[in-house]
This record gives sequence, structure tokens and C-alpha cells, in this order.
Amino acid sequence: MKKTDILAFLKEYQPNFVSGEEICRKMGVSRTAVWKHIRALQGEGYLIDAVPRCGYRLVGIPDRLYGQEIAHGLDTEFLGRTVYYYDSIDSTNREARSLASGGAPHGTLVVAEEQTGGKGRQGKGWFSPRGTGIWCSLVLRPGIAPAEASPVTLLAAVAAASAMEKTAGVSPGIKWPNDILADGRKICGILTEMSAEMERVNFLVVGTGINVNIPQESFPAEVRDIATSLRAVKGGEVSRAALLRQYLREFEHYYRVWLDTGFEPVLDEWKKRCVTLDRPVLVKSAGESWEGWAEDVDPGGALVLRLKDGSRRRFLAGEVSLRI
Amino acid sequence: MKKTDILAFLKEYQPNFVSGEEICRKMGVSRTAVWKHIRALQGEGYLIDAVPRCGYRLVGIPDRLYGQEIAHGLDTEFLGRTVYYYDSIDSTNREARSLASGGAPHGTLVVAEEQTGGKGRQGKGWFSPRGTGIWCSLVLRPGIAPAEASPVTLLAAVAAASAMEKTAGVSPGIKWPNDILADGRKICGILTEMSAEMERVNFLVVGTGINVNIPQESFPAEVRDIATSLRAVKGGEVSRAALLRQYLREFEHYYRVWLDTGFEPVLDEWKKRCVTLDRPVLVKSAGESWEGWAEDVDPGGALVLRLKDGSRRRFLAGEVSLRI
Repeated sequence: MKKTDILAFLKEYQPNFVSGEEICRKMGVSRTAVWKHIRALQGEGYLIDAVPRCGYRLVGIPDRLYGQEIAHGLDTEFLGRTVYYYDSIDSTNREARSLASGGAPHGTLVVAEEQTGGKGRQGKGWFSPRGTGIWCSLVLRPGIAPAEASPVTLLAAVAAASAMEKTAGVSPGIKWPNDILADGRKICGILTEMSAEMERVNFLVVGTGINVNIPQESFPAEVRDIATSLRAVKGGEVSRAALLRQYLREFEHYYRVWLDTGFEPVLDEWKKRCVTLDRPVLVKSAGESWEGWAEDVDPGGALVLRLKDGSRRRFLAGEVSLRI
Repeated sequence: MKKTDILAFLKEYQPNFVSGEEICRKMGVSRTAVWKHIRALQGEGYLIDAVPRCGYRLVGIPDRLYGQEIAHGLDTEFLGRTVYYYDSIDSTNREARSLASGGAPHGTLVVAEEQTGGKGRQGKGWFSPRGTGIWCSLVLRPGIAPAEASPVTLLAAVAAASAMEKTAGVSPGIKWPNDILADGRKICGILTEMSAEMERVNFLVVGTGINVNIPQESFPAEVRDIATSLRAVKGGEVSRAALLRQYLREFEHYYRVWLDTGFEPVLDEWKKRCVTLDRPVLVKSAGESWEGWAEDVDPGGALVLRLKDGSRRRFLAGEVSLRI
């Protein structure tokens, strides 16, 4: 019997008491063992009433992304079935890469309450304060070639946007390639990394940072005007565990669609949420700037720009600014 | 003063004696310090005569791939300027990946006398016995996108074949994509791995195994008929340090050509040595087999096969068997 089994039992009985005797009987352990596990759970922040002649009652679950909290009610097949939880870590992507190199299975989730060196794209930092966001990385092992991997970033953006919509009622937009915006400010970022041989991907690590319950005034001065959180947009707290579970569900769903039937349906979802298309934009890529009309995103995930001279140019990477 | 400075000094005077007094004066150290370093060099296998009233004389250099031996006479700008040397290691590619993740610079060379878990392509093992081959990995940090990285494998094959030719007088052939053959048997293998974000390569690791002085009868039974070594082909020993230096030189040369003027000239060299083109072949790729005429290798490094029905098919990955 494990601590998590007792927790599951208490959750099942919630909001009622369950007697220590019954726990002993069901789990086949001693009263002392039960008491030890209850104390351990309380140490993790679970509020458990212990009343003589009534037994134990779970009255509060800590706002933590413990593996057992993510697992509770999670119906995915492979995503998040293995969880590495950290109170504090430099970067979940770095840790996920290291775990993946050591053989961590497809679908492994690395999650932390805070990142002390959170990373965004292009070497930028990512503000990852304690307990108020989802700072996580997924290890994926699709049997594909490196050149086929780029859709996974767009897929992650669709999954994150969809999860925010369903869990928090906030419908964000996606700025190509994978910035997620609400009220025109960044609410979620995705950093995909890969390890590969020339002909096949060894593993992908999809890092996701979602600003959940960060008060607007807590953002550092340099990003306060360009970043926001679900709490700031919605005006209320959002359950991080519920949001993360939904993200895992959506991600697994779209991942299956991608590998089973192709990227087209995922791209359609992406385009529905896209705020970059059918408008004038400025693209900075490889040290050059290009102005034009954002005409399409093609099945390879590239942005297709119609330039002023009427010609078209594909961008696989770059920074887009929307022109007014 | 370092041990390697004394070694360089001894090499300069070779085959003559240099007095302890002169070493002391030139290097500005005590007789005791000189003696300590000489003992350390002897411990590494250097044969140094120490004769009273004559001084020290270098009479033999060990057949080891020590950093100082590789550096001796090496005129590359970045390749092999940082060397990690191991007497024994599981896999130089694994170690190079780990060093690169920790920030090892562009051009870093990882080399070992033996690999206990040497890896070839597609998860196969690579026989890497002690002291008789070049088992090495290079860390490269080109500023390119993942999709642009595949030429580096063909480039490595050209560099290795060219180095074997110049150092050992053996002209091997290249079987697409990067097997190097002599007398129809594998004499060198290349395994390229990469770590990348979606839009840019973080680093490449190019692992190279060259069978140098392995006696034909030493190969394990399962590869004895399909593998060979320079010694077996040439009928004599080859200096591993000289060959490795030449490989670094050739590699740096073609690497510059690739990034400065494009892949075409490197591909031309590759084609000159290719044994796969203009003949009937069988390609196994992604679980399927294709028979056809090996017509070309395109600038992306893909093999172009003309099938029996006259249509063409490009292969980015696969195993080729030559049909007679």
C-alpha cells in the first residue's frame, strides 16, 4: 500500500469521514502505517481532519502539481502517465532532455512549481514564478524524421489554447508560429527541442509555460505590458491541476490525429485560432526583415508571405509583428 | 610550465639530447620539476632516455591519441582545438552530446582508445577495440536549421575517405549515405546526431569509427566477412594520430566549403567516391523495399532511385544493397 492509495481512498469518501479501521481493512495495513501516511500527506499540504470515533476526512487539496493530483481523473493513454515533479528546478526542458537521454518513456511529463532558469525560444528567459503557472515539458518519441517534426510545435499551441478555453473559459489567439496571446499579450509560450540522428528523431521535448494565476502586477517591468495570465484576463483563479490535465488530454488527442490521419485537421484548428493570417505583417528571419501580407500557413508549418512585388516567400522560422 | 611544453621541447631537439640545465633555463623551472614531468611523460608511455652529462632524449612516442599528439602539427582553426581524451569510454558520441549540452565549444573532439558500447547507425553496435582504431566524435555548432543539417554526414564521409587516401594510400568507396568501404567491406562508419530547437540546430555530434590497425582475424565472427581495416587492406600499420589529424584537416576544409560556398563542391567529391550510383540497387526504407536504378544523389543528400515503371523516388534514409 502506498500513500497515494490512501489519498485516493480519502478522495473517494470525500466529503465524508472514513474510519481508520476501514482503511486498515481495505488496504491490509496496520493503524500505525495508516497514521504515518496521513502525516506524510499532511506534510505535503493535504488538509485531513482526524477525529476520534469518526476517522479521517479530506477537507483540502494543496494547489500543487503533484503526480497524484495530475493523475486523478486523467484519462490519457500515454501522456503524463510518468510524471517527474519538482518543487523547484532550473528548467523543465533541460531536465526532460536529460531524462529522455537516460531512457524516459514516450509521454513522460516533467513539471515544476517554479523554474529558476526557465527558457523561451531563441535563448530568451521565461518568467516562471512559484505556484502560479504551469511550467512543464513533455517527452515524445514519434517514429519520424527530423524534417517531419516541426508540426508538433503548432500542435502544442492548439492543445494549449483548447485547454485554456475548456478549463478557464478564455479563448486565446495564436501568433505564428506558437505564441499564445490573450488581450494581445503573451499568456503561453512553447519551446520544442529535439534530439535526433539524421534519419530519425530520437526524442522531442515540448516545453510549455502557461501563465495561470500570476497577478498582472507581479510580472517583471520589462514584460508587464506584453505578458498576461489567465487570472488577469478572467478575473479569478484557475485550477492548475485541472488545466494541466486538460492540456495533456488535448495534446494526446491532436497528437493521435497528426500521426494517424495527418496534420491537416490539426492545422485547420490552428488556423481557426490564428491571429497572424490575412493581414499585413513584418517578419524578421535570419537577420533580415520582410514586409508583406500573411497569406497562409502551409502543411509544413511554414508562414507564406505575399511580398509587395507579388511574389511569395516561405518562412520556417522568424518573429512576426502585426502591422496596423 | 606544463608537461606538454617539455614534451614539445624534447620533440624539437629530437633525435638529440637536451640538457636538464637547458630545459630549466628555457622553461624557468627547477631540476626537480623537470624530473617530475619527465617521469609523468614516461608514465604515459613516452620513451625518454635520461643520461648523466647528456640530458634527456625522446626516443619513442606511444601509439596513443593524447591531445598533445593530435595537436602536434595540427593546423586547423577550430576543429580539434579542444580535445577530450579517454582511455576507455562507453561511447564517444554519448560523451560528446553530454559535453556539448554543458557548453563544449564548436570543434571539440572527443576521442577514446576503446569504446565499450560503441554505437553505429540505427542502434547497431560498433566494434571498437583498444588502440587499433579511431573512435572519435566532433561537436559542431553551425548556425543552421535542422532541415539543413543532413549534408554534414556526407561531408564527413568525404573527409574520412580523403584522409585515408592521403595518410594510408588506401582509396575507399562511399556507399550511400555514409558507409565507407575498402575491398567491398566496411572500413569506416559515421553516426551523426543533433540537438535542436525547431528553427535552429543547437549542436551536431559527428561520430566516426575508422578501423585502422585491427587485424582481420580480430573482428568478431558476425562481421569478419563484411568489415576490414586499413592494416588489412594495406598490409601494414598506419599512424592513428597522423590519420586523425588529417581527418580533422579535411573535415574543416570541406566544412568551410559547405558553409561558405554551398554543398555542391562537397557533393561532387562525394559522387567521385560513390560506389552506389549508376547501378541497380535495392533500398530498404521505412519497412519497405524498393528496387531500381540509383540515378543520383541530390543536393539535399537524398538518393534518387529510378523505379522499374520509370518513375523516380527520393530517399532521405535507408539501407542500400548493391544488385549484381
